[in-house]
Amino acid sequence: MERQPGESFRWKARYSYDLNSRETLETRLGVFADFQPRIPEKFRDAKFVFLGNIDPELQLNVLDQVKQPKLVACDTMNYWIQGKKDLLLELLRHIDILMVNDSEARELSGDWNVYRAAHWILGRGPKMVVIKQGEHGALLVDPDTTFKVPAYPLQEVFDPTGAGDAFAGGFMAHVARTGDLAFPNLRRAMVYGSAMGSLAVEAFGVQRLERVTLPEVRGRVKAFRDLVHFSLDGEE
Amino acid sequence: MERQPGESFRWKARYSYDLNSRETLETRLGVFADFQPRIPEKFRDAKFVFLGNIDPELQLNVLDQVKQPKLVACDTMNYWIQGKKDLLLELLRHIDILMVNDSEARELSGDWNVYRAAHWILGRGPKMVVIKQGEHGALLVDPDTTFKVPAYPLQEVFDPTGAGDAFAGGFMAHVARTGDLAFPNLRRAMVYGSAMGSLAVEAFGVQRLERVTLPEVRGRVKAFRDLVHFSLDGEE
Repeated sequence: MERQPGESFRWKARYSYDLNSRETLETRLGVFADFQPRIPEKFRDAKFVFLGNIDPELQLNVLDQVKQPKLVACDTMNYWIQGKKDLLLELLRHIDILMVNDSEARELSGDWNVYRAAHWILGRGPKMVVIKQGEHGALLVDPDTTFKVPAYPLQEVFDPTGAGDAFAGGFMAHVARTGDLAFPNLRRAMVYGSAMGSLAVEAFGVQRLERVTLPEVRGRVKAFRDLVHFSLDGEE
Repeated sequence: MERQPGESFRWKARYSYDLNSRETLETRLGVFADFQPRIPEKFRDAKFVFLGNIDPELQLNVLDQVKQPKLVACDTMNYWIQGKKDLLLELLRHIDILMVNDSEARELSGDWNVYRAAHWILGRGPKMVVIKQGEHGALLVDPDTTFKVPAYPLQEVFDPTGAGDAFAGGFMAHVARTGDLAFPNLRRAMVYGSAMGSLAVEAFGVQRLERVTLPEVRGRVKAFRDLVHFSLDGEE
């Protein structure tokens, strides 16, 4: 890959008309091509680790530097699925949750049905798979259960860039704050992630997240409950 | 429109690879072109009326024959949105719930955002709008609230034909059985509709619905709750 000295990481993509899917036009690793991350000593005891989207070789390398994580989640993208599939599959054997878009889950598994794709991934190591579906929300799938969070009803989406990272941040922050890895709490983590993602897309870049408050996030989490909850006949 | 004497109604459509959207290839009204439905006397007292997808002129005509309905819901399709929009808008002033696909809501309103499209429709008369979103579930929108039912996670969809009608049947049957038009009960009606729709697509034609039992439907409704419910922090 052509690269200027000191060139930063650049990734160009085009979103579809409804901002729901995107096509990667160009990925230039720039300084990431020779990046060898060293985790500062104080982070090596981290209990909750999220491996952001980068070369799976670096993700494995970073993970090796963390001593005894309780939960490891991981993102990736089509670039690595196509170019470093073997290393990505190796990585899957060492993580607890893979978080990917539906198109990435389809590409990785070779199966267009997202539920079958999720179970294909579960067969490669992770205990759970999160499938992000843009304006259609997100799924948490483990071998026995599927949990769905629809997207928050927004009349305007300004900038979907970073929604997946905001989701991961909300998810991991909730898990780290509570330390509770049981499925009911991971359902809540999905909703905290969805709340952060829905806030992120309301303005360009990080403008909305910069000024968001915890009560706003909690209010959005409650709004998600109002969006989907219903009672069975004869219940309150 | 070219028509043979006695030709039946024919409608040809092509579904997308994921069975989620469809394109109408040809609509031949056949015998429906001269159809003038007369409602049998015993149905004129019906309290819950669903006007299936047909010429809005006939829908208005059928509605006129029902004396005092408590709830009128109505389906339509792109063929009428394009060809008889004025009559369709007239019809909207006389119904309580419009049930359409997302693509139909977009075409009718001229707005690609389904929430804005739903509110555009609410401004034309209906108290509520149901927007069916194929593999992404369905929305119930009133001026103040949005309720979302995701689609049931199916690893196989055999035949999406009729899923919308099965949805309408489940929705209306629940409303008619309970007689309760409050929003919490309409949420349940959405889930009964979604349960019927999810069962309908599991086999070709009406094969699955022919042998479905009420306990199976109720089991599917409970499965929808397991799919989406979560508790807030500190709740059970």
